[in-house]
Amino acid sequence: AKHLKRESMARYLVSILTGIGTAIIALAIKFSIHYLADIKFGLIGDLMTKCSHTGCTYLPLLAFVGVNLILTFIGSWMVTYIEPAAMGSGIPQIKCYLNGVRIPGLVSLKALIVKATGVILSVLGGLACGKEGPMIHSGAAVAAGISQGRSLVLKRDFKIFRYFRSDTEKRDFVAAGAAAGVSAAFGAPIGGVLFSLEEGASFLYQTLTWRMVAASVTATLTINIVVSLVHGHPENLSEPGLISFGQFSDIYYLSVELPLFLMQGLIGGIFGAVYVHLNYKLTVFRRAYITEKWMKLLEACIVAVISALMHFMFVWASNDCTDITPHGAHVMTVQGFCPDGKHSSMATIFMKAPEGSLIGMLHNDIKYYEPLGLLIAMVFYFLLATWTYGISVSSGLFIPSLLIGAMWGRLYGIGVSYFVPSAAAHIGKYALIGAACNLSGAVRMTISLTVIVIECTGDITFGMPMLLCMMLSKYSADFFNKGIYDTHIELMGVPLLEWEPPELCATVKAREVMNAPVVVLKPLETVGRILDVLKEEPHMGFPVVASYDPENARQGNTFGRLQGLMTRSQLILLLHERVYKDNKRDLDISFEDIEAKLRNVKGIDIPDNDRELMIDLRSYMNPTPFSVSTNVSLPRMFKLFRGLGLRHLIVVNDKNEVEGIVTRKDLAKYRAHGELGKIKLHHLEVVQ
Amino acid sequence: AKHLKRESMARYLVSILTGIGTAIIALAIKFSIHYLADIKFGLIGDLMTKCSHTGCTYLPLLAFVGVNLILTFIGSWMVTYIEPAAMGSGIPQIKCYLNGVRIPGLVSLKALIVKATGVILSVLGGLACGKEGPMIHSGAAVAAGISQGRSLVLKRDFKIFRYFRSDTEKRDFVAAGAAAGVSAAFGAPIGGVLFSLEEGASFLYQTLTWRMVAASVTATLTINIVVSLVHGHPENLSEPGLISFGQFSDIYYLSVELPLFLMQGLIGGIFGAVYVHLNYKLTVFRRAYITEKWMKLLEACIVAVISALMHFMFVWASNDCTDITPHGAHVMTVQGFCPDGKHSSMATIFMKAPEGSLIGMLHNDIKYYEPLGLLIAMVFYFLLATWTYGISVSSGLFIPSLLIGAMWGRLYGIGVSYFVPSAAAHIGKYALIGAACNLSGAVRMTISLTVIVIECTGDITFGMPMLLCMMLSKYSADFFNKGIYDTHIELMGVPLLEWEPPELCATVKAREVMNAPVVVLKPLETVGRILDVLKEEPHMGFPVVASYDPENARQGNTFGRLQGLMTRSQLILLLHERVYKDNKRDLDISFEDIEAKLRNVKGIDIPDNDRELMIDLRSYMNPTPFSVSTNVSLPRMFKLFRGLGLRHLIVVNDKNEVEGIVTRKDLAKYRAHGELGKIKLHHLEVVQ
Repeated sequence: AKHLKRESMARYLVSILTGIGTAIIALAIKFSIHYLADIKFGLIGDLMTKCSHTGCTYLPLLAFVGVNLILTFIGSWMVTYIEPAAMGSGIPQIKCYLNGVRIPGLVSLKALIVKATGVILSVLGGLACGKEGPMIHSGAAVAAGISQGRSLVLKRDFKIFRYFRSDTEKRDFVAAGAAAGVSAAFGAPIGGVLFSLEEGASFLYQTLTWRMVAASVTATLTINIVVSLVHGHPENLSEPGLISFGQFSDIYYLSVELPLFLMQGLIGGIFGAVYVHLNYKLTVFRRAYITEKWMKLLEACIVAVISALMHFMFVWASNDCTDITPHGAHVMTVQGFCPDGKHSSMATIFMKAPEGSLIGMLHNDIKYYEPLGLLIAMVFYFLLATWTYGISVSSGLFIPSLLIGAMWGRLYGIGVSYFVPSAAAHIGKYALIGAACNLSGAVRMTISLTVIVIECTGDITFGMPMLLCMMLSKYSADFFNKGIYDTHIELMGVPLLEWEPPELCATVKAREVMNAPVVVLKPLETVGRILDVLKEEPHMGFPVVASYDPENARQGNTFGRLQGLMTRSQLILLLHERVYKDNKRDLDISFEDIEAKLRNVKGIDIPDNDRELMIDLRSYMNPTPFSVSTNVSLPRMFKLFRGLGLRHLIVVNDKNEVEGIVTRKDLAKYRAHGELGKIKLHHLEVVQ
Repeated sequence: AKHLKRESMARYLVSILTGIGTAIIALAIKFSIHYLADIKFGLIGDLMTKCSHTGCTYLPLLAFVGVNLILTFIGSWMVTYIEPAAMGSGIPQIKCYLNGVRIPGLVSLKALIVKATGVILSVLGGLACGKEGPMIHSGAAVAAGISQGRSLVLKRDFKIFRYFRSDTEKRDFVAAGAAAGVSAAFGAPIGGVLFSLEEGASFLYQTLTWRMVAASVTATLTINIVVSLVHGHPENLSEPGLISFGQFSDIYYLSVELPLFLMQGLIGGIFGAVYVHLNYKLTVFRRAYITEKWMKLLEACIVAVISALMHFMFVWASNDCTDITPHGAHVMTVQGFCPDGKHSSMATIFMKAPEGSLIGMLHNDIKYYEPLGLLIAMVFYFLLATWTYGISVSSGLFIPSLLIGAMWGRLYGIGVSYFVPSAAAHIGKYALIGAACNLSGAVRMTISLTVIVIECTGDITFGMPMLLCMMLSKYSADFFNKGIYDTHIELMGVPLLEWEPPELCATVKAREVMNAPVVVLKPLETVGRILDVLKEEPHMGFPVVASYDPENARQGNTFGRLQGLMTRSQLILLLHERVYKDNKRDLDISFEDIEAKLRNVKGIDIPDNDRELMIDLRSYMNPTPFSVSTNVSLPRMFKLFRGLGLRHLIVVNDKNEVEGIVTRKDLAKYRAHGELGKIKLHHLEVVQ
């Protein structure tokens, strides 16, 4: 019982360390971007102002485009050539990982470094992206690294936490890490836990939830303490995450406003559906034509140049010089091309890291932005953000989605204020609802997202209308297509199992789904046959049967009575350690350690005269693998896989003889497809 | 595909109706208690004041005791004699129900009526209890009633939603109803969903979560609209639930305060552990000695009299007349025995429905209560609340727990203000943290509870220290014993399966857990044997085997090759409808309908000459029941039961021959018992 206590304590320790580690990454990203962005935009802003007098407009333009291009180039090069697993926000990949799909290198130290550095470069490089999504991937990678007590990339093994080296344990830690990532990004510890529950954890149980809470709380607390210290108010902890929506002084709602907000939910749903549709088409195009690494790099560079040109153009071309003071005394205004004493409101959008643009959009006075300019800027930024998510850089889509929503929300508020002039004083409310609905329409995770937005806003009275609008936004968008993450997962062709078995598949039986013939092993096998099987067959699991008649098997009949299951990695380990029948011994090394040492069978050198020696599999196999009868329905198998996190399910006849084997991929092929209110069952192409 | 769409829409419709129904119950309870309590305390307060001049103190005392006794008597009589399932808060029972345990009558219309009426009577009867806990049970009963489209108690079948009449469907709706109940009670829609997820839903999936959200949001929105209308401010929706903690004007924290709050977490843990321990001892005593119905009724009456005497005594004996205006302009002060122009601060605690006492405790000035009097009152109220939870009335423990915590939290704040005088201005903060920690120490559900408290408080900036303290409170209390609900569940001897298999049971095999010999049926059975089996055996499921040799079975060997499973209710239905081999036909009635018509086999009248007729079970049995091998470990069976909501698991040998059967009860017997930091495995007595 003692070692159980120790392991349980160690699990909490790992969760707390994960929280601290994630916070450190988040802080590094936050401060790098903050200070470097100030320097960059300061220099370029000064150049602009100088040149608006002397006419050297090309100088700030060149500087802006040049700097952005170089930064994006480096970031994209790292992602494209060093670690492609660090691409995008990583949320679809983490979702798959938590679902039980293996994605090599996803939570490695290399991916973490490229992801974190990459997102700094992308944001500084002026792309329409945020730094929040990648925090979730980073948190997951931190959790994986700490819990395993080793790095496969560094080839260092610290020999701690070795009892956590099973797939399930690691996955649980990664779920806690993802929660810590959300918590660090948004200062939303509860939202973080809900995010992991909603998107991830296959088989939920309570102690795992507590560990997620521990990781989340530690992450946001660490950030809060450090940032409050750096900002010089250690007594007042008020900086819980990477982003805050700023202080709303008087956020309340009247019941007559509810319909107005609900309308925004609908708009958000439409924006979200269009966003997903365009991004889907672009991704399909990219699949077909942008196949080489240099092409991906080139695309990222083109996006960087176009973004820079567009940002610059808006500041240069718009005649929106204002002397209204923007929200927040410490906000740096950019004079841009405006006469002295005035500043450019477009520069408040485009000459800032996007978090700053968002806060301005939520809080500035109604007259601060010129409506027509805002509308045009919104459309362009929308297209830019749609293009950006999917190029080969490390980037998140939360902030651009929120910013676009805040832009149209503000326009909506301006519209409302024509009819109800008193609404003008509360324009920020419409911008906030717009931001929330736009994000919800794009990603479609309503509960966790609502909690995240509420925690970000720091106000709960507004939670109820927000929840209603975000639900409406999700449902109206769901009518047209799936969320952006699920769309990308489907495009990846990954065998993700959804929460419920697809509809219309109740009549599909195990017999139709299973793979047959099956490669089976006998309890006593020769080294030679095992080696041949491993070399010839790509399968990950092999049933062990009492007796086995190859002739019978070839005729497509049964394959003997089921005795157990050997996994591929177990077999490789047995061969590698030469644990033959006559020198049977306890293995010092655990089966979970194997992937570190040997990734495939080719590295194993077996002398020819060992081929006839026997291995007794009975001591090593799983003697009670899950099995079902040939008549079991697909929904039931689905529940087994989903509920228990299985990888293989053996199909037996009523004499307990092996008939076939079902893997996760076989089930993931069945997808019920909902579109425009209709459901149909279709087969998905799954990568092998 | 069309009927799937329709069912999915109907599910949402039922969820929304559940929200509205729950809100109506909540509103009825709220307004009844509000207006009747005002009348009651108004009259008695006037009598007190009058008698403090004329010396007729016995008059208000008699009136107070008399009214409380009569109300409690009626309430307790209803619960004891009409529907014992309506006892207490109902939360442990709902938890068991959601876990898959059948509790007859728990979510019936009768239970709903007795519960709702009973809680009004208990609260008005002056017991140390709240009306919030029972709302969860009420919401669950509303959901069950609406989703099934019929009432077994009323014997009315509305023939709607018939496709929802399966155990699983009903359980899902009950989970949504429980969420709506929390939402209605606390105005906490997100907390409600989390409550159901944390305490309930066995097999969680996303669409169920959405339905919970729909029910929760509808419940709180309905209440908000109605109450805001009644209170005359329909434009400002600010009354989301039965209870609110009142408006905190300046709730923020300094980092140096965190250790102070954490200390409160520890205190809350100790209070919680003591509370559970005392209540446990009382409940065991009650089991042994208070066995007759009249005794239960008598106990409730005694508690009512003692409560009334104690409440009165505190107001009468304490010399705490004050002229400080209590928080909230509309608060009714009670002059009590005080001179004119002053009022009694003890009456602000004891001459009010406990929700009012709580709000006062959270908001009144530091000088409002006299510390020594408050301390004594706290101790007495603590003992009273401990005694009250478990007597035969409908009652909740949230409010008393919060009130006790607010009392010691306030005392703690007074202590702090001796050292840091500036703390005096924020005494309410300590009272709030105390309330939250005390509740957390008693019930131990940290995440959902934190969200509920945050939603009640209406402020999120305070969420982080609250979460930390409540976690600490839970963990420190967990060191000593289980939470109050789990303790009661264990005392009920109900076969509840926890989230994870008990520790230390990895070496227990199916062979040791299973029941054998098993009563099996052949595919073709005689009516006579089926009838005999049903009459003699209490089991709920019977394996169907290919061939069956009674002699062999009697020797404890195997029982033939597994073909399928028949449940008890299926067999009863076949007999009742006389579906014999020669008149085989499709049954018009579904298997789920059966319990409405026939509860046991005794009601079935079979003519003697039918006994030799055959029934072909193959057309009706479940042909693919879940089965495992004899060597499967207990944790694996546990996961199957917990993850898939099983009731029976058949144990077979490697020839697929039945060896035994495992039920939920067999697994629930194994409990790992943690106490004072040690874990040991023990067997639980389970009621049969």
